[in-house]
Amino acid sequence: MKAKSSALSELGRRAPPPAISWLMHAALARPKLISLAAGFTDNDSLPVAETRELLAEILRSPKSGRAALQYGATQGDPVLRELTAQHLRRLDGPAAPASVVTPERLLITNGSQQLLYLATEALCDPGDIVLVENPTYFVYLDMLRSHGVAARGVRLEPDGLDLAHLEKILIALKRAGELRLVKALYLVSYFQNPTGVTTRFAKKAGALALLKKFERAAGHPIYLLEDAAYRELRFAGTGEKSALAARGAGDRVIYAGTYSKPFATGARVGFGLLPEPVFTAALRLKGNHDFGTANLLQQLLARALSSGRYHEHLGALCQRYARKAWVMGAALRQHFPPEIKWRDASGGLYFWARLPRGVATGTGSKLFQAALANDVLYVPGALCYADDATRAKPDGEMRLSFGGANEANLREGIRRLGAVLRKLV
Amino acid sequence: MKAKSSALSELGRRAPPPAISWLMHAALARPKLISLAAGFTDNDSLPVAETRELLAEILRSPKSGRAALQYGATQGDPVLRELTAQHLRRLDGPAAPASVVTPERLLITNGSQQLLYLATEALCDPGDIVLVENPTYFVYLDMLRSHGVAARGVRLEPDGLDLAHLEKILIALKRAGELRLVKALYLVSYFQNPTGVTTRFAKKAGALALLKKFERAAGHPIYLLEDAAYRELRFAGTGEKSALAARGAGDRVIYAGTYSKPFATGARVGFGLLPEPVFTAALRLKGNHDFGTANLLQQLLARALSSGRYHEHLGALCQRYARKAWVMGAALRQHFPPEIKWRDASGGLYFWARLPRGVATGTGSKLFQAALANDVLYVPGALCYADDATRAKPDGEMRLSFGGANEANLREGIRRLGAVLRKLV
Repeated sequence: MKAKSSALSELGRRAPPPAISWLMHAALARPKLISLAAGFTDNDSLPVAETRELLAEILRSPKSGRAALQYGATQGDPVLRELTAQHLRRLDGPAAPASVVTPERLLITNGSQQLLYLATEALCDPGDIVLVENPTYFVYLDMLRSHGVAARGVRLEPDGLDLAHLEKILIALKRAGELRLVKALYLVSYFQNPTGVTTRFAKKAGALALLKKFERAAGHPIYLLEDAAYRELRFAGTGEKSALAARGAGDRVIYAGTYSKPFATGARVGFGLLPEPVFTAALRLKGNHDFGTANLLQQLLARALSSGRYHEHLGALCQRYARKAWVMGAALRQHFPPEIKWRDASGGLYFWARLPRGVATGTGSKLFQAALANDVLYVPGALCYADDATRAKPDGEMRLSFGGANEANLREGIRRLGAVLRKLV
Repeated sequence: MKAKSSALSELGRRAPPPAISWLMHAALARPKLISLAAGFTDNDSLPVAETRELLAEILRSPKSGRAALQYGATQGDPVLRELTAQHLRRLDGPAAPASVVTPERLLITNGSQQLLYLATEALCDPGDIVLVENPTYFVYLDMLRSHGVAARGVRLEPDGLDLAHLEKILIALKRAGELRLVKALYLVSYFQNPTGVTTRFAKKAGALALLKKFERAAGHPIYLLEDAAYRELRFAGTGEKSALAARGAGDRVIYAGTYSKPFATGARVGFGLLPEPVFTAALRLKGNHDFGTANLLQQLLARALSSGRYHEHLGALCQRYARKAWVMGAALRQHFPPEIKWRDASGGLYFWARLPRGVATGTGSKLFQAALANDVLYVPGALCYADDATRAKPDGEMRLSFGGANEANLREGIRRLGAVLRKLV
């Protein structure tokens, strides 16, 4: 009576083990390990007191308390959507038209991650193609793999996507008759995970115009999916406008934002602004997923925003990350061999270091094994590159996070890694 | 430059408008409307004070506060999983072996709804078949439709599934060579949504044995997906054991449970117990969805369970629902014509009323329109039946919820509906 094979779906079979699952496993097995790999947020500055006060306010009155503990609408709390639209309009200024940035087009999600999932589900069939920055956010690559969607990598420059390369790829896809498979371009446009690169607004507008140019040949819209997860974690420089402010953004830009990283990752609330028909499809799918993000968390964020506590906390958080980024930068200068290149961070959670030719960083490399033996962990750069049958993935980079570890551990982690590097470089 | 067609995926195109979206719309348009349609939970008994105290305890100390506001593991908080395993073992007694009911196999989700989504994603490709009770939970039918999965309805009796009918369907599927498409049998086994029927344990065990009998011909396992969302909302009778206590359950039963309805729907935490390889696939997909349910909500539920407040609240809630069910039953006896049949509720949130032959309840029916004109709303029974090309859906039933409305509105709603019915029956 034993069944011969698995009953899993194609999706269930394809879903890969998370790229970093064994990194986390390695971390658990070594209690003294300093992880510069995890994308955790700073533990000491989590808004414990603020959250306690906000929740006490919400739960003090039976009326607001019950509203927070009852089901809400699948799309999300109307007050939070209104506050989110205001928030986005403040970030983008008058360039983002109020007709585009409206509460009606906002969907509240379980972090921006869920928005990425819903948008991808709504757009992509197996065999489809999503254009991505190379390197890009590796969890998104996993998600595409599980859906049988191919990621096509576009070169990344210090100010964002290489538009000439994007055009070259679109032309090649057109020639191959594959443009109809291209559904979206995915950009992590602020302090990118993993490189820290911020895309100039002009490049977003340029990318959007390029996509539009190829739509006729594609036979359908090609969306720009802007993942702005790190946008508010800015501690130097001026802010770039989002793609929502670009010409023609109204019906082509899907914007994913989050309150998790700026406020509290344990109270995960994200949001998306979507054009039709993607909005309606994503809303229906959200209904099937969970009919709406937990109301209690939405009310918490709405009150954090309306009371000003969100922005107070964010200001302090950015100062803290600025300090941690400075600590990591100083440690890198002190301990890393001069052949290794990186750029100082002006936001986000990451440094991206390039090693000299011939020194590999992958999980099987001497460097990685020596680092692990010396109780320090990083994310190998190759994990962040799209699969490409025509060439090997770059294997000489590493992502270093200053988010989770405290200052002492940042210094010590970089010292350990530097010592290993000095032997190998 | 206008694109010719939509870029939506098959899934995005198929996702139907929620069956009840226009019911909700109708409700919004009529402020005096009494909805006996919504599956909302009782508003006045939401645990506002308990939640305030529990969250204050968690957020009082920086240590537990930070733990609640930081990311957690995708699978869910280890303490909550341990408490959930204990909780399930208490519900099922020694019949459910500790080797099956373990924290290692538990996945914490955003309500049990997300578990249904993950399990269905992990198992079903477009064209596959899931066997369902007829009638069944209509949101699950929507979910299957969006995935292009066919629901095949199995007759429901007052004590659960008609096993003879299940066998007949399995034989017919085998003859048609379609058994390989059958991935699961979905049972809402306690105080079913919509009928209130509870499945006897012997029937669960019988269904599981039947599924196993046909696995060889299917070529793969056929899972029993037990949705126990209403299990703890029991206010009369003794509890039936879950399918986890049946012989052979260990590698074939997927159990979906929730803390949302028993505690607070606005703090949505559900869970699933899954066998391999479904567990691993669902865990990976959960990572892609949102890498874990919000930690703050998990810590809230863990503390509610460990402090005893969860069970205190549940006891009071069940008393309250018993009272509301009694109120609805008394109103039905007083106001409904004697030709209309229903059974008193012993748990859950619903009554299921059958009208005499010839009186339709559908959204286009005279009855439904007259009810709406008289400001009372119910769920038409046909929404809860699986699509079936060979026969029309039964159209003479209605689901009446005593969950959301208060006692006065329950009485008044049934009075209004009774008046309309007396004219039409």
